[in-house]
Amino acid sequence: MKYGARNQIKGKVKSVKKGDVMSLVKFEVTAPVEMASVLTTESVDDLNLKAGDEVQLIIKAIHVLPIKI
Amino acid sequence: MKYGARNQIKGKVKSVKKGDVMSLVKFEVTAPVEMASVLTTESVDDLNLKAGDEVQLIIKAIHVLPIKI
Amino acid sequence: MKYGARNQIKGKVKSVKKGDVMSLVKFEVTAPVEMASVLTTESVDDLNLKAGDEVQLIIKAIHVLPIKI
Amino acid sequence: MKYGARNQIKGKVKSVKKGDVMSLVKFEVTAPVEMASVLTTESVDDLNLKAGDEVQLIIKAIHVLPIKI
Amino acid sequence: MKYGARNQIKGKVKSVKKGDVMSLVKFEVTAPVEMASVLTTESVDDLNLKAGDEVQLIIKAIHVLPIKI
Amino acid sequence: MKYGARNQIKGKVKSVKKGDVMSLVKFEVTAPVEMASVLTTESVDDLNLKAGDEVQLIIKAIHVLPIKI
Repeated sequence: MKYGARNQIKGKVKSVKKGDVMSLVKFEVTAPVEMASVLTTESVDDLNLKAGDEVQLIIKAIHVLPIKI
Repeated sequence: MKYGARNQIKGKVKSVKKGDVMSLVKFEVTAPVEMASVLTTESVDDLNLKAGDEVQLIIKAIHVLPIKI
Repeated sequence: MKYGARNQIKGKVKSVKKGDVMSLVKFEVTAPVEMASVLTTESVDDLNLKAGDEVQLIIKAIHVLPIKI
Repeated sequence: MKYGARNQIKGKVKSVKKGDVMSLVKFEVTAPVEMASVLTTESVDDLNLKAGDEVQLIIKAIHVLPIKI
Repeated sequence: MKYGARNQIKGKVKSVKKGDVMSLVKFEVTAPVEMASVLTTESVDDLNLKAGDEVQLIIKAIHVLPIKI
Repeated sequence: MKYGARNQIKGKVKSVKKGDVMSLVKFEVTAPVEMASVLTTESVDDLNLKAGDEVQLIIKAIHVLPIKI
């Protein structure tokens, strides 16, 4: 089984908050993580991103897909 | 400055691969990470997600927004 | 009227579950379907995707935009 | 292996177009399909969506995640 | 024709930059705009969002779907 | 602070509707707006997009990230 996505992070469920239609689940990440972003080359140039730069990576929770192993 | 997103991860740029329109940037994550996912309550029930469960979190790179500090 | 998206699927509403802010709608697809995915070339190489391969296509419901005809 | 997403569609790769950073992959869907959408309850009310309504479902290709079985 | 999305903005194409697989299109917005965001209630509370607050709205270009009228 | 996204729009909160897990926030946009979209080059060709064309830009509310200044 191989996933067509750059970010594949192992975690453990910490809490589940169930709503009427949508639910919010929190995870503890249990292994070292490397992440990847795709953005426009224009944005890369605007931020002048280069090796060593410190960044913050923002991801809306809706974009995180959990898979139960 | 406060972001309206559950996942805010500190990282350091490792590599930048520039394409004609889109670019791929890789990051090393430099701090312990907790993550959150929003999904349908139906999916939570299908997966029977509960505290302690081991999961894999899949995120397409396009959904990762870097902010330069 | 032409849409700037590769996937345009005809369907019929089967059920509507209304929540306080978000709702979940199910559809029966009424015509043969071809689908398209954009992913990093790195992921294509990792999966070694080529014509004839069997795959599963995963789409979070939040990414499906219904248009009423 | 269980996926936290409402849409899980079986398909077969028809073509792969590799670009410098991003690639476009087309699939033939090989089984009957049911789909789900999450949208605001406000949008459901605006469209007055109810069982039997004909709709078009639009999905940008970037939101389709292929998994190789 | 009615769209199941809260943000529907009229614009005029200013430029098109075509790449091998993906393209970047810029638009001038030609009418006053009201926008909507869906986020977790937790994030709303963290930001303490209330009427009158000044915000910046960030949208990755990949999430903008153009429709030709 | 620089954001790796093409669309950065200044606005003012008009209303907040809190749900059990997700909330819907509306904004008045207080400055002239230019927007950008990334789509497949195939879609650009299908729509035959060129400078001057009138379009409608559709964005699901879930893809709008508010940042409090």
